[in-house]
Amino acid sequence: MAQLRIALAQTNPTVGDLSANADRLVEQTREAAERGAHLVVFTEMFLTGYPVEDLVLRTSFVDASIRTLEQVARRLREEGLGELPVVAGYVDRAGLAPRVGQPKGAPLDAAAILFRGEVVARTAKHHLPNYGVFDEYRYFVRGDRLPIFRLHGVDVAVAVCEDLWQDGGPVSVVGQAGAGLLVVPNASPYEKEKDDVRLELCARRAREAGCALAYANQVGGQDELVFDGDSLVVDRSGELLARAGQFREELLVVDLDDLPVSDAATGSFPYDAGDGTTITVDRLVLSAEPVAPRPAEPAPIAERLDPHAEVYSALVLAVRDYVAKNGFRSVILGLSGGIDSALTATIAADAIGPDRVDVVLMPSRYSSDHSVGDAEELVRRQGLHARIAPIADIVTAFEKEIELSGLAAENLQARVRGMILMGLSNQHGHLVLTTGNKSELATGYSTLYGDSAGGFAPIKDVPKTMVWELARWRNAHTRPGFLLEAERPIPENSIVKEPSAELRPDQRDTDSLPPYEVLDRLLDDYVEKDMGSQELIAAGHDPELVTRVIRLVDLAEYKRRQYPPGPKITPKNFGRDRRLPITNRWRETTA
Amino acid sequence: MAQLRIALAQTNPTVGDLSANADRLVEQTREAAERGAHLVVFTEMFLTGYPVEDLVLRTSFVDASIRTLEQVARRLREEGLGELPVVAGYVDRAGLAPRVGQPKGAPLDAAAILFRGEVVARTAKHHLPNYGVFDEYRYFVRGDRLPIFRLHGVDVAVAVCEDLWQDGGPVSVVGQAGAGLLVVPNASPYEKEKDDVRLELCARRAREAGCALAYANQVGGQDELVFDGDSLVVDRSGELLARAGQFREELLVVDLDDLPVSDAATGSFPYDAGDGTTITVDRLVLSAEPVAPRPAEPAPIAERLDPHAEVYSALVLAVRDYVAKNGFRSVILGLSGGIDSALTATIAADAIGPDRVDVVLMPSRYSSDHSVGDAEELVRRQGLHARIAPIADIVTAFEKEIELSGLAAENLQARVRGMILMGLSNQHGHLVLTTGNKSELATGYSTLYGDSAGGFAPIKDVPKTMVWELARWRNAHTRPGFLLEAERPIPENSIVKEPSAELRPDQRDTDSLPPYEVLDRLLDDYVEKDMGSQELIAAGHDPELVTRVIRLVDLAEYKRRQYPPGPKITPKNFGRDRRLPITNRWRETTA
Repeated sequence: MAQLRIALAQTNPTVGDLSANADRLVEQTREAAERGAHLVVFTEMFLTGYPVEDLVLRTSFVDASIRTLEQVARRLREEGLGELPVVAGYVDRAGLAPRVGQPKGAPLDAAAILFRGEVVARTAKHHLPNYGVFDEYRYFVRGDRLPIFRLHGVDVAVAVCEDLWQDGGPVSVVGQAGAGLLVVPNASPYEKEKDDVRLELCARRAREAGCALAYANQVGGQDELVFDGDSLVVDRSGELLARAGQFREELLVVDLDDLPVSDAATGSFPYDAGDGTTITVDRLVLSAEPVAPRPAEPAPIAERLDPHAEVYSALVLAVRDYVAKNGFRSVILGLSGGIDSALTATIAADAIGPDRVDVVLMPSRYSSDHSVGDAEELVRRQGLHARIAPIADIVTAFEKEIELSGLAAENLQARVRGMILMGLSNQHGHLVLTTGNKSELATGYSTLYGDSAGGFAPIKDVPKTMVWELARWRNAHTRPGFLLEAERPIPENSIVKEPSAELRPDQRDTDSLPPYEVLDRLLDDYVEKDMGSQELIAAGHDPELVTRVIRLVDLAEYKRRQYPPGPKITPKNFGRDRRLPITNRWRETTA
Repeated sequence: MAQLRIALAQTNPTVGDLSANADRLVEQTREAAERGAHLVVFTEMFLTGYPVEDLVLRTSFVDASIRTLEQVARRLREEGLGELPVVAGYVDRAGLAPRVGQPKGAPLDAAAILFRGEVVARTAKHHLPNYGVFDEYRYFVRGDRLPIFRLHGVDVAVAVCEDLWQDGGPVSVVGQAGAGLLVVPNASPYEKEKDDVRLELCARRAREAGCALAYANQVGGQDELVFDGDSLVVDRSGELLARAGQFREELLVVDLDDLPVSDAATGSFPYDAGDGTTITVDRLVLSAEPVAPRPAEPAPIAERLDPHAEVYSALVLAVRDYVAKNGFRSVILGLSGGIDSALTATIAADAIGPDRVDVVLMPSRYSSDHSVGDAEELVRRQGLHARIAPIADIVTAFEKEIELSGLAAENLQARVRGMILMGLSNQHGHLVLTTGNKSELATGYSTLYGDSAGGFAPIKDVPKTMVWELARWRNAHTRPGFLLEAERPIPENSIVKEPSAELRPDQRDTDSLPPYEVLDRLLDDYVEKDMGSQELIAAGHDPELVTRVIRLVDLAEYKRRQYPPGPKITPKNFGRDRRLPITNRWRETTA
């Protein structure tokens, strides 16, 4: 039996910043070398970042990806790191003739093995996900080669991300061909409690492949996606050996022992992949001699975050990366004294520091005294930059030109606030954060171009009941990486008071909506679980409410499309992973 | 040899309105019967409308589709139409066990043959398009059965839409199995001059299948898609026999003769589809006896619209259907005196009639006299409802609360206008039309929540140079179906004057942008043809301009996502068929 020390680079690439990602690859490889690793595994499409969407259809982009890979291989050798093999994700092309229905240029979601300054083997994702947030039949063609390279006597196979999730394909072929270790670069986005599913999956696939499995996952925010890291290693029986933290970069170094030594012949061998396709295994040898035995160092198994810490950390990371990767220095948002804007401000302050968070208090003739007071208290506790811009005179100026009443007049107030924030954003370069939550967004209880105007929506995928839970959790906890030092940063009154949009006298959310505990349960069943109206009623929801809420949700489709991006934390964020026609006469309730 | 009279129902279904679509199916079938047809062919997914996006993942929706199909079959018999076979598109399900990566419920883009009150055969699209505006791997599983039914002695095969565009599959199987006629229900969206490609394709596939081919295409607007109809029939040599008009409903009745009489055995037979799959042909007999010979009636071959008439008609139909299918009664837009809003108003008046078009003149302190004059002249010529709402006092009220200068102050003016339109929309129920063109949208030369605020963007996909061409064309032409009766509806001065946003004194578009002839050519090469910066320079574009325009286009990505839907007329509208990450550091010009 043989040993290997492997390093999983759980990293945060920036989409499109190939040279910065390459620099990071060299840095992390150097650190891995210093820690005595025999192999470094980077995440899926690490050199380009993931996902790159239609960029991949551009010839120049794919050229740059391939060129960067070859350059970084040479650079590793030049910097004395050539003897340490590196598995690096990037974009390649398959060289197929064009045909209708095939993505332009036949791109591959590829990974390569770099060794002694050369690209010694290439592979590409075989199973292309095309559900939820994934559209990979649009972007890639299927890979059909699986490299197994011998490293210090141990055969190491490489498969990419989705190849682990679907049956058949590379994992099945590894099981047939035999290997001592399967390494898997991933860019697998966060969803609440996905870590449990992930561990179970890795354990099952390790048993199926008959070898240890190392899973390296991307970390960081990219538009609506948050990647949580959670890289891990299991042995061939599926037992967890090491696990990286969530929502942070980490170089996870793990000693594996009891790995089988192989003397299988080199060359290329076709295998039936069990999914109607053939996969060719390319066997090569980097080094045949096992390393001298040494005692294994204990590998970390990071503790899992509790459910609230997990969601809150995802939101903080999403805001931090959206701001930084898009080149903003600061954010601005409207502070109403209510819980949504209070939580959003707190997330922002935790993400980029309170000195980079500007807030505007925009009281109207209907704003209560406690609204301004609660907002001011939050500013004081967190040390934010604040200003006051009353909206009454501006609203009056509009009303002199056009006569508005009822909902139109309420919307006008929300829009005046949106215009003030956008004006200050244009003047000073702040990113505008919107403060709407998922329950509002689902039911259309927001104003287009009003409270929904802005560049990023941190709590877009957080139901109102969870907004309160997160506020309470944050007041009770802090964590390394949160930049806000205040104790109990959110005024208790913002958490406990009855929610109101304050767009007319004595308005309460419950005038138009059911209590949020009731609404959120119904939304979860309708939106996340896709239940039809009969199923919803059978599940115990009030029939009148089912009809009303389904109608609200279906009609709010247009508005939701106009909402800015925000971090996804559930299976069905209203964004790229839920797509309905706007022009549509189908009503679930007429079924 | 035998004869058949077939009717292609080039219809305009409404997505989700299953009962209205079923009514329409019965009506059209009755008309076909009255005209002596032996077969009626409806378009792809006619009963549900196309595309239905994520609705198809809902169990209740697929249930309703299947139930509607069965009901309509019975109803045809009850209404004395049971002897006339009908090919009807709908959504079915494949009954496969769930697995990762397979669309929930395994839906099929299906077509059925209805005869004597029964569903006698079912098929489903085999090739699933997943490029451009199509995401069908997300929604459907692949069909693998091909019905060939004998009708008055002639074997008739059925394939669906994309099966014609891709090599191998159903067309290849029809060629092997032998048939006298291949009928193809389609929902193939309009793109400029696609009709030429379509005819060539049908002719080629008819020769490949060795039989006549009848192509029935949807007509109408659905969100960003416009379907142009253009249904056609070719004989087995590919010669055009009949062709329906563009952008209008039509029942195209065609006499086919010289069709081969078949006595092939009935039953199910597997064929190698030539694309790595097997397709089972289901042969059945509806009627074996050829019809009594009769002289063929001449079939219409509708004249093609010229390029400007074609685009303009697409825009008119898109607006008409977006308004009607979403239940609006009227539209509202801001009229500046410039060409973009003048053309948009004219399209709207042609689509729904001038009495349902409201316009608002919103002069600022920088508006020129001719702006108001030209706008008033257009109102007079077209007979629109107009009002004036000067914005100066509202802008002043904002400036008392927040200090804005430069671009931020310019944006504020555009946003005040947007708020006025949205306020009137909310108050009176008008749909707000935005007036931005594609050149502006591409380069980000528009204000988020300002001139881009609204529900539908009629000229979103029309480059500025084409805006002028369409205005000139419309002043010189009218057409059946245009509801505006005015001669030369657009004031000449709006067409010839130099374009200006009038957001600061003496502003001209050419202060910030190159002349539109130069810009539009460059945008076409960069956006539509995906050329890289080196290719653009090699193609003769000015290097400095290439750098500047690519930067503008890449940076405007976020803004473009916030734009309302608008009719697609080019391969790469900025909407569902062009998707780039917002967070992205890749610059074409750094390649």
